[in-house]
Amino acid sequence: MNYGMILHILGLAGCFEALFLVMPAIIALICGEEVFRVYLFSIVLCAVAGGALVIRKPGKSTMFAREGFVAVALAWIWMSAFGALPFVLTGEIPSYIDALFETISGFTTTGASILTNVEALSHASLFWRSFTHWVGGMGILVFILAIMPNGGNGTTVHLMRAESPGPSVSKLVPKIRSTAMILYAIYFGMTLLEILLLLASGMPLFDAVTLSFGTAGTGGFAIKCDSVGSYTMLQQGIITVFMILFGVNFTFYYCLLTKKRKHIFSMTEVWTYFGIIAVAILAIGINVMPLFESAGEAFHHAAFQVGSIITTTGFGTVDFNLWPAFSKTILVTLMFIGACAGSTGGGIKVSRLILLVKGITKEVSLAIHPRSVRKVRMEGRTVESEVIRSVNAFIALYLIIFVLSVLFISLDEMDLVTNFTAVAATLNNIGPGLEVVGPAGNFSSFSAFSKLVLCFDMLAGRLELIPMLMLLVPSTWKR
Amino acid sequence: MNYGMILHILGLAGCFEALFLVMPAIIALICGEEVFRVYLFSIVLCAVAGGALVIRKPGKSTMFAREGFVAVALAWIWMSAFGALPFVLTGEIPSYIDALFETISGFTTTGASILTNVEALSHASLFWRSFTHWVGGMGILVFILAIMPNGGNGTTVHLMRAESPGPSVSKLVPKIRSTAMILYAIYFGMTLLEILLLLASGMPLFDAVTLSFGTAGTGGFAIKCDSVGSYTMLQQGIITVFMILFGVNFTFYYCLLTKKRKHIFSMTEVWTYFGIIAVAILAIGINVMPLFESAGEAFHHAAFQVGSIITTTGFGTVDFNLWPAFSKTILVTLMFIGACAGSTGGGIKVSRLILLVKGITKEVSLAIHPRSVRKVRMEGRTVESEVIRSVNAFIALYLIIFVLSVLFISLDEMDLVTNFTAVAATLNNIGPGLEVVGPAGNFSSFSAFSKLVLCFDMLAGRLELIPMLMLLVPSTWKR
Repeated sequence: MNYGMILHILGLAGCFEALFLVMPAIIALICGEEVFRVYLFSIVLCAVAGGALVIRKPGKSTMFAREGFVAVALAWIWMSAFGALPFVLTGEIPSYIDALFETISGFTTTGASILTNVEALSHASLFWRSFTHWVGGMGILVFILAIMPNGGNGTTVHLMRAESPGPSVSKLVPKIRSTAMILYAIYFGMTLLEILLLLASGMPLFDAVTLSFGTAGTGGFAIKCDSVGSYTMLQQGIITVFMILFGVNFTFYYCLLTKKRKHIFSMTEVWTYFGIIAVAILAIGINVMPLFESAGEAFHHAAFQVGSIITTTGFGTVDFNLWPAFSKTILVTLMFIGACAGSTGGGIKVSRLILLVKGITKEVSLAIHPRSVRKVRMEGRTVESEVIRSVNAFIALYLIIFVLSVLFISLDEMDLVTNFTAVAATLNNIGPGLEVVGPAGNFSSFSAFSKLVLCFDMLAGRLELIPMLMLLVPSTWKR
Repeated sequence: MNYGMILHILGLAGCFEALFLVMPAIIALICGEEVFRVYLFSIVLCAVAGGALVIRKPGKSTMFAREGFVAVALAWIWMSAFGALPFVLTGEIPSYIDALFETISGFTTTGASILTNVEALSHASLFWRSFTHWVGGMGILVFILAIMPNGGNGTTVHLMRAESPGPSVSKLVPKIRSTAMILYAIYFGMTLLEILLLLASGMPLFDAVTLSFGTAGTGGFAIKCDSVGSYTMLQQGIITVFMILFGVNFTFYYCLLTKKRKHIFSMTEVWTYFGIIAVAILAIGINVMPLFESAGEAFHHAAFQVGSIITTTGFGTVDFNLWPAFSKTILVTLMFIGACAGSTGGGIKVSRLILLVKGITKEVSLAIHPRSVRKVRMEGRTVESEVIRSVNAFIALYLIIFVLSVLFISLDEMDLVTNFTAVAATLNNIGPGLEVVGPAGNFSSFSAFSKLVLCFDMLAGRLELIPMLMLLVPSTWKR
C-alpha cells in the first residue's frame, strides 16, 4: 500500500476544498453576513491541513487499483469531515454528526437533510450546501486530476474507475485526462444553460444558481422548506427536463456534439432509461389524477417526481407520501433503478439492470434448450463474463449492505417503511424517502448511530460500494 | 414438446389426487359430517378426469428438461384446481378463486389463508387443508414416481430437478428412484415421530396429526384461529424443534442414519442455518423481553417465531406484528433467507446465500489483488461457475418477480408493508406477513386479481421460479 501517495491525494483534496470554500465566503461578503469569518477560518484550516500533506512528497507515485479505491474513499470522508465545519462553527447545525450527515449528503449528491427549517440558514451556508452537490456530482478527485497538469495517466484511471458511477468506465478519447476534461465541459455547459433558462423564466439569481447546482449533481438540496413546490409550473418544468438530462450517460452528449451522432441510436441504456421514465409518468399520472384539478397538473407533478426519483435528485413539488400506494410503489422501485451509468445520478443504474435481465434470459433459455450456446450482447458488443459476474456481485453486495443497514437503523424503533425507504434514499443517493423521511419530513429524528450508518450508505452508494467496503476489509491494509 | 407425456403425467396426478381425497372422506365418515358426499363426488371427479388422461398412452415416453419443467408446473396447477373443489362444493369457501388460493397455499406449503374463521370448517376440510401441506412438502410428482414401478429413470430426474428445492439435486444413491424412496422414508418417519411426541404431550389425535402435517411440509395451516397459540409451552416447544428439523437438508439425516456420519461436519449449509437461527433467537429474545413476563417466555416465543419463519412454516404463537421494529426486521429478513436446500422449506435457501457471499468475496478480493486466481469452494468441493451463474440468475429473477408482484397488488391500495410482506410471505411460501396479512390477519381483503398474482407467487416460489416462468415464455411452446 502506497501510503505516501494516498496522503498526498488527501492533501490535494484539502487544498481544493479550501478553494471551493472561497465561493460561499464571497456570497457571505456580498450578502453582508456574519458567517463570513467562519468561512474564512474554514478556508485557512483546510489550506493548512491540506498544504501540510501536499508538501510531503510521496516516495513513489505509482498506484494500483487497491490504492485508487482507498484514496477515493478516504478523500471523500476527509472532505466531508472538513466541509462540515462551517455548519458547526456558524452554529447553524450545532451537532457535528448532524453537520457531517448534511455534508456527506451534499457531496454524495444525496440531498437527505437533518434540517427542520432550511430557510433559517445564511445565504453562504445555503450556497455551500448546494455547491457540494455540484462538486460531488462529477467526482472530486477526477476534477482535481483533470485540472492538475502533472496527474499521471495511470493514477488517474484508477481514481476515475473508483469514483465514476456505472459498471465500467468508457474512455471517450485515448487520454483519460482529456476524457475527464470533456465530461467537465459538458457538465459546466449544461449547468450554465439551466441557470440561464431559470433566470429567463424570472427566477432570482441565487435560486437559479443553487437549484441548478442541485439539478446538475442530481443532489436535491433546495433553499426553501417546500423544496421547489413554490416555484412556477414553467420553472418546475425546466428543472424536470434538466433532472432527466443529467441522468443520461454523458457519452450521449459527447456523441451528439461530435461526428459520432449515429452512435446514440445504439445506446440501449439511454433509450431504456427514457422508456422507463415515460411508462412511469404515464402510470403515476393516471393513478394520481383524482388528486389534482386537471390531467395536465397530474402529469406535470408525476413527471417531476419520476424525474426527481429515477435520477436520484430528490427535489419535490408535492408530498408524494400522500399519493396512492401504487404510485408510491412505482417511485420506490425507481429509487433502486437509478439513472444511467456515466451520469451524475445514483442507484443501481439502468445498464446493470439490463445486464441482469439479459443474464436471466440466458439462463432461462439454457433451461429450455440445454445444449445451445448463448452470449450476452449489449449495444452491439459481446459482454464479457467478467462484467456480468461483477454486476451480479454488485447487486448481491448491494442487497447485503441494504439489509444490514435496515437492521441497524431499526434499533431506533421507527416504522418499517421509514427504515426501508431511509436506507433506499441514502444508499441510492436520492434524499427523501417515505413516512418520517418523506418529502415533508427529514432525517433529524434518527439516533447518532443510525445517522452514521446512513452516512456510510451515502458514501457507499456514491462510490459504488467497493471503495467503502475495502476500508472495512483487513486484507486491504496488509503490507 | 412431448404433449402426450405431459398429459399422461397430468392424468397420473389426477388419479393420485383421488387417492389423497380418500383420507378426508374417511375423516368425514368418522366424524359423521355431511361433507362426506362432497368428498366422495370430488374423488370420482378426479379419478374420471385423471383416468381419461392416463388411459391415452403417450407416443414416446422420452422427456427432456423442458418437458419436465412444464409437466411439473401444469401438474401443480391441475391438482390445485381440482383440490379446491371440495371447499367450494361444501360451501365452506364459496368463491372459487378463494378456494384455489387456499389450495395452492396448501400444496405449496405456504399456509397463507383467506379464511377469517378457520374453526368453522368441517373436520374433513381441516384435514384436507393440512394434508395438502404434507403432500406438497416433498413434492407431488416425485412421490408419484417414487411409488410407480415403471417410472423411467430419465423422466424422474427431470421431474425431480424441477420439483425439488435448492440449486442442485444431490443423489444419495445411484438410482434416482431409490433416492426419492429414502427421502420419503425419512419424511414419513419424522412426521410419525412428531405425531407420537405431540400425543405423548397430551394433544388430541386430530390436532397432533394435522399440526404434524403442517410442520413436516413447512406449511403453516393450523386448525385454530390463534394458530398454535392455545397449546401448552411443551407442545409449542416440540413443534419448534420439528419445524427447525424439517428445514434441514434431508441428506443430513441420511448421512446420520448411514455410515457417512463424518460427512455431516462438512455440511456448511446446515451449520450456517443453525447459526443464523441461534443468532436470530438471541437478538429477538433480548429485544422482546420487555413484552413478556420472564426471559424464558421471551426466548420461547422468539425461538418459535424464528423457527416458524426461517423454515417458511408460518405457524404462530403470538402476534409478532406487535413486536418492535428491530425484531420485525429480523423476521422479514429471515423470510427471504429461507431454509436449507433439499428440505421441505422455501425461501431463497441458505446455500444460495452462501454462494452469493462467496461470489462477492471473490470479486472484492479480485479488486484488491487484480491478478490473483480464485475459485469458489463449498463443502470441500470447487463450485462450478455454472452453478454460481444460475444462483445469480435465480436471485435476479426472484427480485424482478418480487417487484412486479408488489406493483400489481399495490393497485388494491393497501399499505406498503402489507403489500411487501404479502408478496414476501407467498413467494417464500411462509404464510403470514405483517399488518393486514399479519399473524392475526388474513389474505381475504385482496382483490381477485391480487389473489391470482399471489397464487402465481406461491407456485413460483415452491417450484423455484423456472417452471412457472417457462409457462409464460412463448418459445417453450414452439414445435
